[in-house]
Amino acid sequence: MSVPDPEPLLISRNPLPAAITGDLLAQLTFIVEVDRMKAVLRQSWVVAVDRPENDAEHSWHLALMAIVLAEHAREPVDVARVVELVVLHDLVEVYAGDAPLHDEAARAGQEERELAAAGRLYALLPDEQGARLRAAWDEFEAHVTPEARFARSMDRLQPLLLAWMTGGKGREEGVTAASIRERLAIIADGSPDLWAAAEVLIDESERRGHFGG
Amino acid sequence: MSVPDPEPLLISRNPLPAAITGDLLAQLTFIVEVDRMKAVLRQSWVVAVDRPENDAEHSWHLALMAIVLAEHAREPVDVARVVELVVLHDLVEVYAGDAPLHDEAARAGQEERELAAAGRLYALLPDEQGARLRAAWDEFEAHVTPEARFARSMDRLQPLLLAWMTGGKGREEGVTAASIRERLAIIADGSPDLWAAAEVLIDESERRGHFGG
Repeated sequence: MSVPDPEPLLISRNPLPAAITGDLLAQLTFIVEVDRMKAVLRQSWVVAVDRPENDAEHSWHLALMAIVLAEHAREPVDVARVVELVVLHDLVEVYAGDAPLHDEAARAGQEERELAAAGRLYALLPDEQGARLRAAWDEFEAHVTPEARFARSMDRLQPLLLAWMTGGKGREEGVTAASIRERLAIIADGSPDLWAAAEVLIDESERRGHFGG
Repeated sequence: MSVPDPEPLLISRNPLPAAITGDLLAQLTFIVEVDRMKAVLRQSWVVAVDRPENDAEHSWHLALMAIVLAEHAREPVDVARVVELVVLHDLVEVYAGDAPLHDEAARAGQEERELAAAGRLYALLPDEQGARLRAAWDEFEAHVTPEARFARSMDRLQPLLLAWMTGGKGREEGVTAASIRERLAIIADGSPDLWAAAEVLIDESERRGHFGG
């Protein structure tokens, strides 16, 4: 199990001066490496300007949403932990890339790619810290804690909101209102209120003929 | 005191269905409006791809840095609060734009523009929530709490790190090692360790002739 064709670390383009050592060297190496998030393009389009969104922007938008929408969580949540989870949740995509939810070909092997990516990425950090950040990703993926469930709700609601604003830009061929409903129903696990709002958006988009099939 | 030529809200391009009302309508309006952060370009260039960074990416990168570098804070900090501060700290730039630290012409009137922008932006939210988010911005700007000081350290260190990686790309004419040292010394208020590392980067950049004057 390996990440295909691993590129050199970004830091190798201009290594840090030798006076920077130890944990701080490891941490700055990691911080530079995850700059790659800004180059991972998603299916969703930005509202304010005409281009696809990237993972760094998406993660920031989710953090903002978690802060603003916390009162709508199904169960009481530690908002700060939700924010931390969404800031970290897509990091493995710096090596594994974004695999759209509706694209089965892209999803094939994605879990394996993400596990390999996590192995490579978190190993850059001091051991205990790498384990701690990886645990946040595991928590998000496991969808068991109230914080992970609410974080996932943000992650599903945000692309729907961008699609609403951009007339469905970036949505793949063959996506239907029914398939969107099925993929997004998980929003209700974190917030029944927000799922109700999401259903309103899907229903109205369907009425306006924004979906193909 | 007013924001020059206010544009219509982004949400007016495709208003939400009438079934979405009350606080949730206000909150989703705000969440869509701040998508503009993705279109506010900064002086710093992205490392992973050849273009300027935007405010959404920058804010995400600071959140990640706060999580990774928290142990280097001068005083114990509530990391979650630091993350919240950096996620919110540049929001007023959706209307006021980014005014680079080293550009005195751009800085003129910037405080006034940001106050006007805050007035307009936070008024979109339910009253109590708008006041709470604005208070986070005020806290960041006041630079008094340990969390605000560490957040500011992230905000000053990150562009230096990007400049190191990109060979000083985006740096204005006339910026010298001395002027950078003066503007960045505030990093020490949040973290003497990180200021020491920053000085290493500035010294080495100077040695390599990355500065003009």
